[in-house]
Amino acid sequence: METMRWTDEGILELLDQTRLPSQVVYIKCANHREVAAAIKRLAVRGAPAIGAAAAFGLVLAGRSLKSLSGDEFIAGIRAAAAELAATRPTAVNLYWALERVTRRLETAASRTPDELYALLLDEALALYAEDVASNRKMGLYGQELVPAGARILTHCNAGALATAGYGTALGVIRAAREAGKEISVYASETRPLLQGARLTAWEMIQENIPVTLITDNMAGYLMAKGRVDLVLVGADRIAANGDVANKIGTYGLAVLAREHNLPFYVAAPVSTIDLNLASGEEIPVEEREPEEVTHLAGLPLAPAGVSVWNPAFDITPHRLVTAIITDRGIVRPPYVETLQKLFETKKT
Amino acid sequence: METMRWTDEGILELLDQTRLPSQVVYIKCANHREVAAAIKRLAVRGAPAIGAAAAFGLVLAGRSLKSLSGDEFIAGIRAAAAELAATRPTAVNLYWALERVTRRLETAASRTPDELYALLLDEALALYAEDVASNRKMGLYGQELVPAGARILTHCNAGALATAGYGTALGVIRAAREAGKEISVYASETRPLLQGARLTAWEMIQENIPVTLITDNMAGYLMAKGRVDLVLVGADRIAANGDVANKIGTYGLAVLAREHNLPFYVAAPVSTIDLNLASGEEIPVEEREPEEVTHLAGLPLAPAGVSVWNPAFDITPHRLVTAIITDRGIVRPPYVETLQKLFETKKT
Repeated sequence: METMRWTDEGILELLDQTRLPSQVVYIKCANHREVAAAIKRLAVRGAPAIGAAAAFGLVLAGRSLKSLSGDEFIAGIRAAAAELAATRPTAVNLYWALERVTRRLETAASRTPDELYALLLDEALALYAEDVASNRKMGLYGQELVPAGARILTHCNAGALATAGYGTALGVIRAAREAGKEISVYASETRPLLQGARLTAWEMIQENIPVTLITDNMAGYLMAKGRVDLVLVGADRIAANGDVANKIGTYGLAVLAREHNLPFYVAAPVSTIDLNLASGEEIPVEEREPEEVTHLAGLPLAPAGVSVWNPAFDITPHRLVTAIITDRGIVRPPYVETLQKLFETKKT
Repeated sequence: METMRWTDEGILELLDQTRLPSQVVYIKCANHREVAAAIKRLAVRGAPAIGAAAAFGLVLAGRSLKSLSGDEFIAGIRAAAAELAATRPTAVNLYWALERVTRRLETAASRTPDELYALLLDEALALYAEDVASNRKMGLYGQELVPAGARILTHCNAGALATAGYGTALGVIRAAREAGKEISVYASETRPLLQGARLTAWEMIQENIPVTLITDNMAGYLMAKGRVDLVLVGADRIAANGDVANKIGTYGLAVLAREHNLPFYVAAPVSTIDLNLASGEEIPVEEREPEEVTHLAGLPLAPAGVSVWNPAFDITPHRLVTAIITDRGIVRPPYVETLQKLFETKKT
């Protein structure tokens, strides 16, 4: 099952994740506005996946700009990038991908629109392929932290569906399984949109990895009963000090993991690390519509007119994070130093 | 809105809480088996409410035994009590109520079946009335702990609907409001059955107490953002050492409250305290059907065949409980002494 695919006809097909697991439907996006709309309504979600989808969004924008001059082409791409960037505020991979693809064009401004379009497509396809490769690397590094027989609690979906493929947190789980470790998974359902129940449980069942579903509020008791060995989640943005923005509920799990002396691991590619932000306090946290909480598939769950607070993410302070698993290796505190080094290593 | 009512025709009418808030429907119970079924499927829920419903269940059983001898009558009541007791294992109020009503008969064994029936009804009505009175007392004691302007996080429904009326935790909130304090409430939705969203939000809206709904996994971030002043919940059973069994998710909130230096209060009548159990480890925790987690109103939320763990309650260790608000006053640690004293006080 592919999260997204670029067709020979130059169309982006996105697996509509709002309809999983009951329906497997691909949405065809023929222009960048359709990609932006799909990101906004979470048809595609997960920090690396929305980065890759946005990159292809720029390719679609480029296709409609081929009749223009090189400068006009690049101006048009910048405008499309701004529209795509305005969809969701928290996951930094979105901005990272848009910037990476746009910069590739800017360093080649003298070329023809056709050549610029080819560059766009090349860069988007490279970014997409690198994401899968980086997840594989994360898996290899991260699985070292997973003991044989480990019972792993994960939250939301940091799986193949959240990325170009293989997954971040679920990539580590897949790699542990591939290394011959008999692991099992607890998936917290992840209200309001149930990515744990709908997507993570589904991915694990497809791979024959034993998975048990719980509601989010069962995690504490699960740990108290000694049924979990470690917690492993993805991330939407990691600040320079190691503070982690991830799906709402992650912070509570981190506090509970500490209370029960369980390791709390975050798996994310370096494209999720934002050294421009000193701490998690600077990460913008998206608040979404009340209807996500008050309704499910159109069915009202609460009395009409009730007030709702619906933050889509929360911030886990670095002191609760045992280690961060990246595609360049595992980093541990003090993150303010080790995360910085990760980028310096690349440059050498 | 009454949780239950005993009619002139000798029928117990129970508000079907599974259909709230969209429908207000009373179920008519003409025999104790119908009451047992209603308790089992949570048409009536909340520790004090199921105690009161079970007491009326014995009255209904008694009505069908009037043609028998006094001894046969009492044996029939004991059999009905055993059936009612087998419905749900965690809330001790159920057993307490059944024992109280049965004991009233046993100390009057020489009377006629008609007289025994009258005693049953008298005891059930007294228990029902006392529950409302005890909630009022709890409210008066407990509201002293609620500062003016307090923002209170509560879980599940410990309200009028969970009792004969007024409520335990929500009774304290009502009393704080009646004392002129401008309080506001955060209701965690309480998966899987959404008693917070369906029942607590509804009760608060009806009373014009400001209420904001969150999903269970938002509580940690809510506290981290400084939006909560105290946590206040009910209880299903309290062991002699102060360990508290309450709706699943309560333990996680208690850990989070401690992490954020917030008081964590439990409101419960003395009928919820079980001095026979030394600690929470001895409290039986009900595990319910997977379908409560995997389906909502018949709609599948997760892939078919996923494993589920569905404990209905968890245990909060006494070290996390700031104070217990009872109908005989507020008790604080060391609970192993202060809870015991609560019962000694009554006897003098």
